Amino acid sequence: MRSFEVKNRTSAEDIKSVRLITAIKTPYLPDGRFDLEAYDALVNMQIVKGAEGVIVGGTTGEGHLMSWDEHIMLIGHTVNCFGGSIKVIGNTGSNSTREAVHATEQGFAVGMHAALHINPYYGKTSLEGLVSHFESVLSLGPAIIYNVPSRTGQDIPPRVIHTVAQSPNMAGIKECVGNDRVKQYTDNGVVVWCGNDDQCHDARWGYGATGVISVASNLVPGLMRELMFGGKNPSLNSKLMPLIEWLFHEPNPIGLNTALAQLGVVRPVFRLPYVPLPLAKRVEFVKMVKDIGRENFVGEEDVQVLEDDEFILVGRY
Amino acid sequence: MRSFEVKNRTSAEDIKSVRLITAIKTPYLPDGRFDLEAYDALVNMQIVKGAEGVIVGGTTGEGHLMSWDEHIMLIGHTVNCFGGSIKVIGNTGSNSTREAVHATEQGFAVGMHAALHINPYYGKTSLEGLVSHFESVLSLGPAIIYNVPSRTGQDIPPRVIHTVAQSPNMAGIKECVGNDRVKQYTDNGVVVWCGNDDQCHDARWGYGATGVISVASNLVPGLMRELMFGGKNPSLNSKLMPLIEWLFHEPNPIGLNTALAQLGVVRPVFRLPYVPLPLAKRVEFVKMVKDIGRENFVGEEDVQVLEDDEFILVGRY
Amino acid sequence: MRSFEVKNRTSAEDIKSVRLITAIKTPYLPDGRFDLEAYDALVNMQIVKGAEGVIVGGTTGEGHLMSWDEHIMLIGHTVNCFGGSIKVIGNTGSNSTREAVHATEQGFAVGMHAALHINPYYGKTSLEGLVSHFESVLSLGPAIIYNVPSRTGQDIPPRVIHTVAQSPNMAGIKECVGNDRVKQYTDNGVVVWCGNDDQCHDARWGYGATGVISVASNLVPGLMRELMFGGKNPSLNSKLMPLIEWLFHEPNPIGLNTALAQLGVVRPVFRLPYVPLPLAKRVEFVKMVKDIGRENFVGEEDVQVLEDDEFILVGRY
Amino acid sequence: MRSFEVKNRTSAEDIKSVRLITAIKTPYLPDGRFDLEAYDALVNMQIVKGAEGVIVGGTTGEGHLMSWDEHIMLIGHTVNCFGGSIKVIGNTGSNSTREAVHATEQGFAVGMHAALHINPYYGKTSLEGLVSHFESVLSLGPAIIYNVPSRTGQDIPPRVIHTVAQSPNMAGIKECVGNDRVKQYTDNGVVVWCGNDDQCHDARWGYGATGVISVASNLVPGLMRELMFGGKNPSLNSKLMPLIEWLFHEPNPIGLNTALAQLGVVRPVFRLPYVPLPLAKRVEFVKMVKDIGRENFVGEEDVQVLEDDEFILVGRY
Repeated sequence: MRSFEVKNRTSAEDIKSVRLITAIKTPYLPDGRFDLEAYDALVNMQIVKGAEGVIVGGTTGEGHLMSWDEHIMLIGHTVNCFGGSIKVIGNTGSNSTREAVHATEQGFAVGMHAALHINPYYGKTSLEGLVSHFESVLSLGPAIIYNVPSRTGQDIPPRVIHTVAQSPNMAGIKECVGNDRVKQYTDNGVVVWCGNDDQCHDARWGYGATGVISVASNLVPGLMRELMFGGKNPSLNSKLMPLIEWLFHEPNPIGLNTALAQLGVVRPVFRLPYVPLPLAKRVEFVKMVKDIGRENFVGEEDVQVLEDDEFILVGRY
Repeated sequence: MRSFEVKNRTSAEDIKSVRLITAIKTPYLPDGRFDLEAYDALVNMQIVKGAEGVIVGGTTGEGHLMSWDEHIMLIGHTVNCFGGSIKVIGNTGSNSTREAVHATEQGFAVGMHAALHINPYYGKTSLEGLVSHFESVLSLGPAIIYNVPSRTGQDIPPRVIHTVAQSPNMAGIKECVGNDRVKQYTDNGVVVWCGNDDQCHDARWGYGATGVISVASNLVPGLMRELMFGGKNPSLNSKLMPLIEWLFHEPNPIGLNTALAQLGVVRPVFRLPYVPLPLAKRVEFVKMVKDIGRENFVGEEDVQVLEDDEFILVGRY
Repeated sequence: MRSFEVKNRTSAEDIKSVRLITAIKTPYLPDGRFDLEAYDALVNMQIVKGAEGVIVGGTTGEGHLMSWDEHIMLIGHTVNCFGGSIKVIGNTGSNSTREAVHATEQGFAVGMHAALHINPYYGKTSLEGLVSHFESVLSLGPAIIYNVPSRTGQDIPPRVIHTVAQSPNMAGIKECVGNDRVKQYTDNGVVVWCGNDDQCHDARWGYGATGVISVASNLVPGLMRELMFGGKNPSLNSKLMPLIEWLFHEPNPIGLNTALAQLGVVRPVFRLPYVPLPLAKRVEFVKMVKDIGRENFVGEEDVQVLEDDEFILVGRY
Repeated sequence: MRSFEVKNRTSAEDIKSVRLITAIKTPYLPDGRFDLEAYDALVNMQIVKGAEGVIVGGTTGEGHLMSWDEHIMLIGHTVNCFGGSIKVIGNTGSNSTREAVHATEQGFAVGMHAALHINPYYGKTSLEGLVSHFESVLSLGPAIIYNVPSRTGQDIPPRVIHTVAQSPNMAGIKECVGNDRVKQYTDNGVVVWCGNDDQCHDARWGYGATGVISVASNLVPGLMRELMFGGKNPSLNSKLMPLIEWLFHEPNPIGLNTALAQLGVVRPVFRLPYVPLPLAKRVEFVKMVKDIGRENFVGEEDVQVLEDDEFILVGRY
């Protein structure tokens, strides 16, 4: 499925220098379909505030709750609307090699700049199997590999990364295991994006990480930009810490979904199995927005608590 | 699934002025997947030779042999690579209203400029059903309606067209019933593209048609451009007639697929149920290319007869 | 995808003797999903009244409005619930050879007794292509081929049938072209089911047809059983003719869907592009039921006219 | 999508008494499609040797490497061929509530007796989200809930189980956390199947478990039957331990896939990301088969080591 098209084709090198990548939220209409108008506004705010890349349909964007045709459509849509202003990184990974290969081919065909690839979560495999899986997809174009054992049930050990890093398409790793692991990679020339918002400041300024693939930047893109570009800034980092802790109190993107609805930038619609944070947490969020400053958050409306019955939960869509 | 994106958004008015639209061939790799490199070359040749629009995945492009994810991907790919140079019209029609609505939403989301909509072939419906079907999809964006009773088993009568033409998204009709019908529409202000290559010269210059949605232009785009833009030219029309007759000797795109393979611009790979024209017809094609002039056809290689065993027929892909 | 399972496996010979096959209606819930409870009741009534086979997801059953997973599920469901009492013939045909092969494999895997195969409608192909298409699917199990040029836009000529009839899996043909064609086949040993309710009496008793694949039997299974088993009966045939004409006044299954809703055996839910017959026709139906006798129709409730606003039309489901 | 069909409909009570359930292997043809002939033979051996249920498309059966249409087809096939002899439990769980609901509806429609439901792996959710997820699917029919934090990244805590156990459709839990947790449930009247072969003897005879959902029983069904039915038998348990350790040396089903190929009952075909165990491990397996006795294993052929190049790995299928 080769194409000689080069308009948006990016090399792994172009990806390696990107510092602030937002794992963008996917907003929904009340019937559960994508709300592309809200989505476009979210992406646009990221561009305006200085994010250089978006992960489309990541765990934050709930790619695992999309059908593949929705997912590829969203990647194509993002490229078409914003591909000239921001790197579009499609989460075309899967625990099925077949699915990952198919989705990655399609993602590159519709113009994504790079792929995000997870190791086979849930099904898991041997180290040899991991290498086979990643080699199957790395041949198709630039890729970031994503290690998050707390979700996948299996750590990708450095020796697997070093093996697959032979591929010129390997841009780097989104690492969630911690800053010692980050250092282990950056000391050896492997590009790392920190996958934990609470560790990203230290990863960037103390452990050699290139940047962050962030959830919090959905809310405060300008501050996250400052954190990644503005030099060591423990004071800003501390200021953000309560927000980050709040965001990850429940599995992501539960906190993020709740927060963006409270900020009035997305409809309060959840695809199950996600449900909003309880009222007490929503009250906390309003307070945090005031502490950090409404102007640092996305959107223009007043932050609201929202009542339980304002949320719509959809199981069929 | 609204988007505020306007980069490629085209109004029905922009479509109405387009004269030469090519129902572009979809080429395949030996395993039956799309050959995007060959596809991009085909589209590029259309742009260079003056086509102003392409139908992606039409009957000529074998949309009915695609899964929907392939189909939408190909639309997104075409927009991404060529959307600035040519109008991309996705054949997101279906005999199932659900499928047509879903595909049309996705097609616009990935940036197509207009949709091509067929009436429900095979299943058919009542005139009230036709109106409901077309109204369901016309609300989503600019559209051309396609009438080809020899394929669908059901003529779309003018009164249905006049009813749905109330929609500002109705750009016009691709009509295959003949030039009297064409005139009936153009006399009443409905834009028409002739759907039959053998009638398009007369439709354009004698019956008020705006242009053609052409199969032959896959082969001789420059001559078809001349036929639509250069004024009345019965001599050129006559010169092309044997080629057009050859092309439609068997159901399209059998002739086209065979011809493009012989011209060396696509691999000789057929998705079943299509099979190549027999040897005698392939010999005839070589002769016609010489008569009309190799330089008027796409591609640079010598035209070849090709042996039976050079063709690959794929049933699983 | 071979299976050594033989429990329900039927040979083409077993199919050849079946006389009354009902192209069973698929009923829907208000959200457009299948109403399996109503469906099971419909199939059960067929069994009780003497039908020997059902076509699942035929044009009458709106297979063209199903996703393939729905379609295969319905076949598997029917086998599971009724496979011991009635022949389950899955309409796993398609205009795409790939789809037909995949669906037919799956249909046999879930236990269907035979497949119904259409020629490639809308896309059409050459006679060689027709043979390749049918041979691709005939290798998978017993099959009935379906010829309905008024829907497909292309007649399957006898020489194609005689070629593919070499396969031991070819059970016979559902022929809609007329009784001269029927005779042409039965004179040559090809089993025929009449595909037109208005011609089936004569086909059966005058032209050698084995039986009928019927739409009307959804409504009056006992009378259709009598028509196929009870010997020449021009009086019964005449008595049914107004009902049959009413049924096919608009493209099938519009009339059938309307009638079954009026009889209270299915909810008045239509998947677009089908819409109900207008009020005047619904009034006519009530009268015909009284003329023919309510007791000859399926269901127990009084036949009703139904108001326009009692019908639900669904475009997304 | 209700059905009044009762032929195979099982109540949660019928499931609660089943002791030996095999998480059946899905075998493949060299092109990666299902090998139904081999599958049927595997299921048949389970029935002959005394298994009372099979999990279709579990993690062992590689449901996560199936498309949903394949998965539902395999459930329907199993019901159709073997539903009278063994309980067919479809793994229609998913980390997407939509997928789980849709697949579960379809699985019950094709006759499965019960569903296996996992918590949302990888995506994870809050405890409230877990309850919403399980309640969405428990309304559809009898279900076993599956807790395997080493795969899902999230433990299902007892309070969630006790909440959803209010549903009459909750048959019990497949628990992998260990025998203390097993006891915690069985003391409170929740039915438990041990999900770890190495702990199942003790779970059954010392901690109140009803039985096991076993991987090892794919290989030695008769011995696993003995272990679950024959009373406390530490000697048999010890005898099996080296085999069980070998099986789980790499993530399941890598060991099982390798072993069944060595026993000659399935083709040596792996869907990626699974790859066979290395040569040294294959040699070990031959030795273990001899120690335990070839006659206790499935199949009739001599156990073989198999060379590396005898294995076929498929990434596209």
